[in-house]
Parts: sequence; C-alpha cells; structure tokens
Amino acid sequence: MSVTAAAGYVAGGAHVGIRRSAPDLAVVRSTVPAVGGGMFSRNRVQAAPILVSRRHLAETEPQAIVVNSGVANSATGQRGQLDAIATAAEAGRLLGLAAPQVLILSTGLIGVTLPMGKLLQGLRTVVPGLSREGGADAARAIMTTDTRPKEASVTSAGFTVGGMAKGAGMIHPDLATMLAVVTTDYGLAPGEAPRFLAPAVEESFNAISIDGDCSTNDTVFLLANGASRVERSEANDMAFAAALDEVCRDLARQIVEDGEGATVLAEINVSGAANREEAKAVARRIATSPLVKTALFGHDPNWGRVLMAAGSAPFAGGYAQVDGDRVTLSYNGTVVLAAGAPQGGKPEVAGPTCRIDLDLDLGDGRASYLTSDLSYEYVRVNAEYTT
Amino acid sequence: MSVTAAAGYVAGGAHVGIRRSAPDLAVVRSTVPAVGGGMFSRNRVQAAPILVSRRHLAETEPQAIVVNSGVANSATGQRGQLDAIATAAEAGRLLGLAAPQVLILSTGLIGVTLPMGKLLQGLRTVVPGLSREGGADAARAIMTTDTRPKEASVTSAGFTVGGMAKGAGMIHPDLATMLAVVTTDYGLAPGEAPRFLAPAVEESFNAISIDGDCSTNDTVFLLANGASRVERSEANDMAFAAALDEVCRDLARQIVEDGEGATVLAEINVSGAANREEAKAVARRIATSPLVKTALFGHDPNWGRVLMAAGSAPFAGGYAQVDGDRVTLSYNGTVVLAAGAPQGGKPEVAGPTCRIDLDLDLGDGRASYLTSDLSYEYVRVNAEYTT
Repeated sequence: MSVTAAAGYVAGGAHVGIRRSAPDLAVVRSTVPAVGGGMFSRNRVQAAPILVSRRHLAETEPQAIVVNSGVANSATGQRGQLDAIATAAEAGRLLGLAAPQVLILSTGLIGVTLPMGKLLQGLRTVVPGLSREGGADAARAIMTTDTRPKEASVTSAGFTVGGMAKGAGMIHPDLATMLAVVTTDYGLAPGEAPRFLAPAVEESFNAISIDGDCSTNDTVFLLANGASRVERSEANDMAFAAALDEVCRDLARQIVEDGEGATVLAEINVSGAANREEAKAVARRIATSPLVKTALFGHDPNWGRVLMAAGSAPFAGGYAQVDGDRVTLSYNGTVVLAAGAPQGGKPEVAGPTCRIDLDLDLGDGRASYLTSDLSYEYVRVNAEYTT
Repeated sequence: MSVTAAAGYVAGGAHVGIRRSAPDLAVVRSTVPAVGGGMFSRNRVQAAPILVSRRHLAETEPQAIVVNSGVANSATGQRGQLDAIATAAEAGRLLGLAAPQVLILSTGLIGVTLPMGKLLQGLRTVVPGLSREGGADAARAIMTTDTRPKEASVTSAGFTVGGMAKGAGMIHPDLATMLAVVTTDYGLAPGEAPRFLAPAVEESFNAISIDGDCSTNDTVFLLANGASRVERSEANDMAFAAALDEVCRDLARQIVEDGEGATVLAEINVSGAANREEAKAVARRIATSPLVKTALFGHDPNWGRVLMAAGSAPFAGGYAQVDGDRVTLSYNGTVVLAAGAPQGGKPEVAGPTCRIDLDLDLGDGRASYLTSDLSYEYVRVNAEYTT
C-alpha cells in the first residue's frame, strides 16, 4: 500500500498523453482537512513546480498534490510558472479547493514546456476517479526511467504512514530527480510537518546516490490529516517520527535498488571521522566515485579506489580529514587495510550487495550512504534519454 | 620529441617485469646540473613516492626522475616509503647522484607493494642505456590504460621545453592519476621552478577531467638545466612561461583525448560567473557530471543536464551562484537557452568534439575545462582493471 494506506486519502493515476504511452499524471488528496510540508532540491536552478509549491506552502496548508511525469517543467521561464499555477488552479476547481491548497510536482525532461491541453484535460479524467485503491495507479504514474513503482507503509500505535516515490538517475543528496509523497493519518498542527520531515529525509533520501547528479525538481511532500484520531502525545510523536523514518528509508532503498542500470547495492559506512559532517562528506564521495562504482559493477574489491575517494572528499573548501596511516577498511567483513597496512585478505564480493566499512580512527563522526554500481546499462539509459 | 627534446637530457624505458608484458620503468636525467620542482595531488591520502619525492625536493635540487607503472606504491605503509627510498638510492648509485637528487613517480594499482627485486634489477638494465633517443621509450613505459604515449615540445627564443605525460582514468583537477615530466634547457635559479610550474599546471592539468576521481599519486615534475645557454631576461622568462604553458596544455589535451573509453572531447566554457573561483567550480561540476557525460556519449544535446549541473556546483560549503533566469547556454555555437528562456534551436552535436558555452550573466568570472564522455568502454576498462 502506498499514499492511500493511511485513512482519509484517495489517489489516482492515468496516461493522459504527456509521455508517449506510460501513465503520466497522478493526483493525491486528503478527504479531510490536512496539514503538510515539503523539502526541496538545493540546486540553484529550481523548476517551476518547486517555485510555485513553495509559494503555496507559505500561504496555506496543502490538501492535494498533482504529479506529472515526462516533462520536468524546469528551465521554462515565466511560462513554466504560469503553467504550474494553471495546473493547481484547475485541480483545485475540480477538487473543491483553493489553488494554493494544491501542490505541484513534475519530473522528466528539462527545458520543455508542459502540454497544458493534455494535462488539464487529463485532470478532468483523473480527479473524478480518485479512490483508496488508486494509490497503486498514482505510484505508477510518477515513474520515469524507474523499472517498478516504489511504495511503502508502516502502521504503528493506531496510525499509518504510507508513501510513494520515484527515482532512477541523478539521485543524490539534496534530493535529486527524486520525488516522494508521504501521507499519514496521524495528526500534526499547522506548520509542524517540516520539523518531522527534515530529520527523516536527512537519513534517507539525502543519504543515497545513483550518480551524484542533483536535479532541479527533487521534492518530498508530507501530508498529515489526523484521520486516525490517535491523540497527540510525546510517545505517539516518537512513534510517528520512527514510522516516518522507516517509510522514507524504505522508499530510499527502493530507489537505489532500482537505480538506472543498478546491479549491485552498496552500503558505505564511515566511522571514526573527525565529526559527523566530515563522515558524511567522505561517505558521499565514496558513494559517488565513478571508479568505485565501476569496481562494484565488476565485483572487484579494488579497495585502493575507496581510499583514493576518501582522501579527496570535498569539505569546507578543502578535503575532509583522512590519515592514510590510521585507516581501517573492510569489504563484506573482510579487513583489507588495518591502520594503513594492507592485510592481503580476499573479500567475497560476488553477491548483489556489498558492504564497505571505513574507520578513519580520528574521532566519533559516523555516517552511512547507499549507492549502486555504474554499469553498461546506466550508460545506455542515459546516452539515449532524449534521442 | 619528449623529455629529451631540450638539450642536456637523456632518458630510457623498458619492460622489467612489474607489469605482465608492457614497458614499466622509465628514467630521465639531466646530464648537467639542473634545478627543479614538483606539484602534487591534493588527495589526503598520498602515495609513498610523493612523500619521498617531497622530502628529496626539500633537501636538494633534483637531477633525475625514476617512474614505474603497474604498481602505484600507495597505501603500502612504512614499507612503501622504504621501497621508494631504496629505488632512489639505487638509481642514484647507478647515475652517480645522491639519493635525494632522484625523484620517484609510481602509477598503477593501489595497495600493492613494489616487486623490488625486479625494479632494482631493471634500473641496472635501463640506466646504462639512457640516451637522447630514449625519450620515446620513457613515454611508453609510464603508460597504464593509456592507448598511446603523450609527448609534446616547444622551441622558442633559443631554448626548448619538452614533456611526457600519462593519464587515462581518474584524471581530474588537483592532479589525479596523472603523471607528467617536463624538462627544459632554459636556466632557472634554485627554488624558482615552482613559481613557473604552478600557473602552467592550473590552466592545463588542473582544468581537465575524465571521471572526477582524484588519485593518490598525481604529480608534475619540472627540470631546468640551462643547457641552452640562453640568458635570463624578463622577455625570455615570459617566453619560457608561455612555452611551458603550451607544453602543459598540449599534454593535458592529449590526456583527455585518450581518456578511458573517450569518444567525444568536450570544452566547457563558463563566463559571467560572480568570480573566477565560482566559474571554475561550475565548469568542473559540468565536466564531471555523469549525466552530462553520458549525454555527450549519446551525442544528445540534453542541455537541461548542463543547467542542472551548473546549479549544483559545490562552492564554499554551498553551491556557486547561478540564476536560472539569467543563464544563456549554447552548444557548438547554437543558443539553446537565452536569459533563462528555451530557444528551441537544434544544435549540431554529431562530431567528436563538443563546445559548451555557459554565460551566467552575474559577473566577470570565467573558466574553461576539458572533459570527455562517459562510454560503455569506460565502464568496461574500469570494471575489469584488477580482475
């Protein structure tokens, strides 16, 4: 179950002609008053749907979300923003909501304007059919080069958190070409959603990488409508934070597993860094190194490349602290380097997952990152994307 | 002609058994007293030959350089440094030099110790055969996954600058798995070499990228021996700086053209950035983006990816300034985006070179970067490197 796992949500999705033949338009709404929030790509170039959704969130609490795939409505100038506003207005009219109560998400090609006729006509087809069962259709309609829909839900302490996401290329921290919609029937007060969303995103969507590229559209939205009638308490808030965390991590893991051309899922664990921020910088650098990722594809425990990447992790205008004489490194539990000295061990790296543990022995900073390998298929998918 | 193009240099190279069958040991020396300097990888993990060569340069002026391929002597602990020192000592004995007058370079696998028996025996074979004609053999012996040797020389105002380099994977700013040896018969005073070398390297080897990875071994050495007897003057210093610059740029361009699996050579020109440093950050980010590089491979003018990369260029703990509404972008002279508005132009990108011009319209900062595409062959070469 997906965005309609929690009580009080309906959704739908269909092919309306933005993409050639795949489903390309999804709508999610809360049937009772909700509150919500979003986290957005930190890319300096932000797509029109992000600019418009930010303004809507600043004005009021969101009740519905419209997502289209196929066209990112990014680098589309003033026209792009007008298109996003028109989409929200028409969806609002059909749903009985004010335009600012509708958030907009787009994913697909950059620099192409939305086929507004098809999109608006599509809304008129999709909105009347919204249903609890429509969550699966919605999850399909937001896919681009994803090979499967990504859905997750957790029920805990009487309430439910559910979500859907799309990923594939560009996935990286700071939310890159990644869209996620998470809904819950736990009740939050107006303005509270970001406080719960931020830490969950930091440990999930911001701790994964497919290719280190960051998109102009990445967004995670959370809607909370209180339909579970579970009362607010510190214990329930903690249970909700944990469930939200679990759903976000589950979706993030599905995104990496389904990364473009991914054949190996790798978990990079960095410990002993000078601090948490440097640990994250080192883990991210390893997770995005093309040489590390091609070695993963080749099932080659070429650990020198991990060390090379660790030693050149951008941090604060220089590189994060690493001392080659203190580093201990292991692959799937086999230590290959201990306090800077090669151990001659032969790690087992034949499987579809790989765990790389790097202890810098400098402090208490730790961080983890999920990444995938860099395969022929990644190159094929991305060399042929628009042509 | 290569490292022996200038007067007063001899060189040689041979297969001595470090690699399976390819040439793997090179020696370059000045036959008259020389001065010199080096620039090294800024990777936090530095290979033993860098640590030893730095110490040697701090002690005295260099007269000779020993280079081996096949084993990088990196992540080899104390043993690695002792091996590098033993190499310099034996080369010095054979050449009639003190050990600190010999600099050491290594390239190849990380985490593997040098086969010292073969290396020292190899020196005894190579050193007696050093000759002016041996420059070509030396340029071959430093190759790893390079498909061809890289040599360049410029004669100007009565003196010559010549050089050899090796590149292939990992090439990136901060000198990544890239070795270069440049020699000249122009005369410099002790300690002067770095002042000339630094700006030449910044605009050449530090402005290219194959895959954004930085190695633990990258080094550029310069030897200057005054054998041309051209006298020092401000005009001659300027001519020398220009010749050094030209040789370094020529070698850097050859490295990118021969990048692992490279089929397209792309020149990224960023102008109008807030300042030069931000221009370089943006150019580097575009040049290292896997999505931009796979699009180059596919001859796909997917300019949205260039914009996406430009908007997420790490700079000073955040991203370099980019305003999507001011950006003008062109491919091979065809404007695709003007002041943030798509132009609908169809650029011609079928050829083996691609020029991308990005004007940020924010200030006077400009920078250029050379890069190559990301191809199936890149993945193949790097997935199979050790296995």
